[in-house]
Amino acid sequence: MTEPLRLGIAGLGTVGTGVVRIVQRHAQILERRAGRPVEITAVSARTRDKDRGIRIASYAWEDDPVALARRDDVDVLVELMGGSDGPAKAAVEAAIAAGKDVVTANKAMLAVHGQALAEAAEANGAVLRFEAAVAGGIPVVKALTEGLAGNEVMRVMGVMNGTCNYILTRMESAGLTYEEVFAEAKALGYLEADPTLDVGGIDAGHKLALLTAIAFGTRVDFDAVAIEGIERVSIDDIRQAADMGFRIKLLGVAQMTGRGLECRMSPCLVPAGSSLGQLEAATNMVVLEGDAAGQIVLQGAGAGEGPTASAVMSDVLDLARGTRLSTFGQPAASMEAAPAASASAPAPYYLRLALVDKPGALARIATALGDAGISIDRMRQYGHAEAVAPVLIVTHRTSRAALDQAVAGMDATGVVSGSPVALRIEEV
Amino acid sequence: MTEPLRLGIAGLGTVGTGVVRIVQRHAQILERRAGRPVEITAVSARTRDKDRGIRIASYAWEDDPVALARRDDVDVLVELMGGSDGPAKAAVEAAIAAGKDVVTANKAMLAVHGQALAEAAEANGAVLRFEAAVAGGIPVVKALTEGLAGNEVMRVMGVMNGTCNYILTRMESAGLTYEEVFAEAKALGYLEADPTLDVGGIDAGHKLALLTAIAFGTRVDFDAVAIEGIERVSIDDIRQAADMGFRIKLLGVAQMTGRGLECRMSPCLVPAGSSLGQLEAATNMVVLEGDAAGQIVLQGAGAGEGPTASAVMSDVLDLARGTRLSTFGQPAASMEAAPAASASAPAPYYLRLALVDKPGALARIATALGDAGISIDRMRQYGHAEAVAPVLIVTHRTSRAALDQAVAGMDATGVVSGSPVALRIEEV
Repeated sequence: MTEPLRLGIAGLGTVGTGVVRIVQRHAQILERRAGRPVEITAVSARTRDKDRGIRIASYAWEDDPVALARRDDVDVLVELMGGSDGPAKAAVEAAIAAGKDVVTANKAMLAVHGQALAEAAEANGAVLRFEAAVAGGIPVVKALTEGLAGNEVMRVMGVMNGTCNYILTRMESAGLTYEEVFAEAKALGYLEADPTLDVGGIDAGHKLALLTAIAFGTRVDFDAVAIEGIERVSIDDIRQAADMGFRIKLLGVAQMTGRGLECRMSPCLVPAGSSLGQLEAATNMVVLEGDAAGQIVLQGAGAGEGPTASAVMSDVLDLARGTRLSTFGQPAASMEAAPAASASAPAPYYLRLALVDKPGALARIATALGDAGISIDRMRQYGHAEAVAPVLIVTHRTSRAALDQAVAGMDATGVVSGSPVALRIEEV
Repeated sequence: MTEPLRLGIAGLGTVGTGVVRIVQRHAQILERRAGRPVEITAVSARTRDKDRGIRIASYAWEDDPVALARRDDVDVLVELMGGSDGPAKAAVEAAIAAGKDVVTANKAMLAVHGQALAEAAEANGAVLRFEAAVAGGIPVVKALTEGLAGNEVMRVMGVMNGTCNYILTRMESAGLTYEEVFAEAKALGYLEADPTLDVGGIDAGHKLALLTAIAFGTRVDFDAVAIEGIERVSIDDIRQAADMGFRIKLLGVAQMTGRGLECRMSPCLVPAGSSLGQLEAATNMVVLEGDAAGQIVLQGAGAGEGPTASAVMSDVLDLARGTRLSTFGQPAASMEAAPAASASAPAPYYLRLALVDKPGALARIATALGDAGISIDRMRQYGHAEAVAPVLIVTHRTSRAALDQAVAGMDATGVVSGSPVALRIEEV
């Protein structure tokens, strides 16, 4: 096979521009590695005349990405427009209907429509791949789908939204509140137009839904991801967790338990000395646990022109080399609905509460925990000038149900001001 | 393609046993992922009757691995015997000659004969893959060959011998000498029959030679790897490097510089806070730097039954799924000899010396550095009860040639007892 692989690029934002740059700059390298040239034949974007710092005049132009997808001189649609529906989905569907392969970075589209699109691709003999949709330049889709193909996957964890990790680590290093760092990040242009996608955990939740489907061979189900953002993480929690040897991360965890498939994206405590605990700034990290391989940790840039374009090119080179894989590592039609977890796996928890300073108050809290069957690993009451004392508790492993019962019991004592903060401690 | 992929396993040591276990235990998972069954049809090992804790009675037995490789009911030879020559090479050559695909974990064989074997495989339409030969369960060959296929690779670094990292970290944590930890490791069975392969850096050098070929598209050339083992690393260096914020690792580095391809495996200092610096015990870590992806860090178990068998199965599943890649990511015949580096890239260096306690001694050392054009980043002279004072110097970036000149200059001053220790500080 020595004919060129002909790409049609839909979307010339940061990532699309990056892909064009790589194809142009590395033409020789790519041809040597693929055994055939990789070329761009046509492009599509919202605006034609815009200085992107790249030469696109030699490519055919299409205003309509669907028309791009259908062109006879396009072998692979590279979809880099984004958005779960609309033109991105229409173009991908058109390409698949025409039996063409698709490479996309669109996590939102795949998290919502991935199952249907993968089945359509399969039915039409097309390949649909998405390395760039998860954790930017880290080849985690490949590591999980192919590298760990001989493993039963036990758990997948990850920090997969760089903006959230930037905010959390910046709060800690600069001693700023969530609101202060949020404003800072906004001013620096780090946040999406709709920041809820980032700080609300949606974007990271999309990514986790995709990794979960590969890891456990279950149908892509974004609605099954229990999502909690970082908006309520306080500088007090960050400081006091640090004092107990932990750091707070927006952590995605998917694991198959005796009670079903658990899948959640939420602020968690992890040991400060662990790989996840040491993760700084906007870097991403994914931890894969296989029954044979053990724990594999992958770290790198989760966003940006170069890293994301690199991931797109990984899929493109696979196609150029003739590698044809199922979207989620097994035939989409054979994927089954995940058994929804009836409860999250037991874990230690971190509790922070404001205790009214009167005799017997701490005893009542300890009793509420004991009544719920929860034993205490560590407890600290801090010195205080006001009428309430900050109290931190790290429990031994317990169920969320027991924890909720204990928190309700604490509320009922009347010695707790406000409601206790409860965060899961993920055992990494 | 729904016929089974039929494996012939040559070698039933730790890794071979692990592969048999995975194929037996995960038959359903593998079939779902590959779209076809993966079966073992025949095995070969030195001893037939030995309790390995696995059932092999249903497989055909061959005393001779070459006969195994030639069997009509074997599609893929899985070579897990080891040894750069002898039966392993003979079996692989026989399989390739018969046009059969080969999966191997044999780093020594590939480092020495990889170029010839890859060319032979190509000429015969066979695939030869080796994920398990480098860094055990970490899918680093895949990450580099495929995940970073769109990148020009700038540098590959790694801690790829778990035994050496165990020895170095144990020396530091327990405050023991190299000899003491070596004896300990030997008693625990951590060392190869010929420990020079581990502590002499040979084993890690083999792995680096393979990654270098993929990264830079150059012919596999083990002889081009400059190798220095950990035998001369002292507990003093470990402690004093730590005091300056560094840790000592047996670090492999391959990088293309203006002066050619530099490839070395040697004890280096890395910042204690870096990912490499934080690597504990027998864990492996590989750092890949691409022009687009930036820095990708991969970490996991570098040896052991499960991790290594997992890597073997990654290659097997690729073949079962119909993925057919060149051994080193591009046609072997197109790989060119590496331009040998005339000198290593400039770097900061760590110098430790024993200074004779007399007036003007330190000035003479500083003069020797200045005469060689080397400027000092940090210098410490430690308190001392004896006639010589320990002096540590961290230089600014300099060439190895200038450093050697400075060290010769120091020797000539007559105020240095013994010869200075010089270790490269790798900028990670």
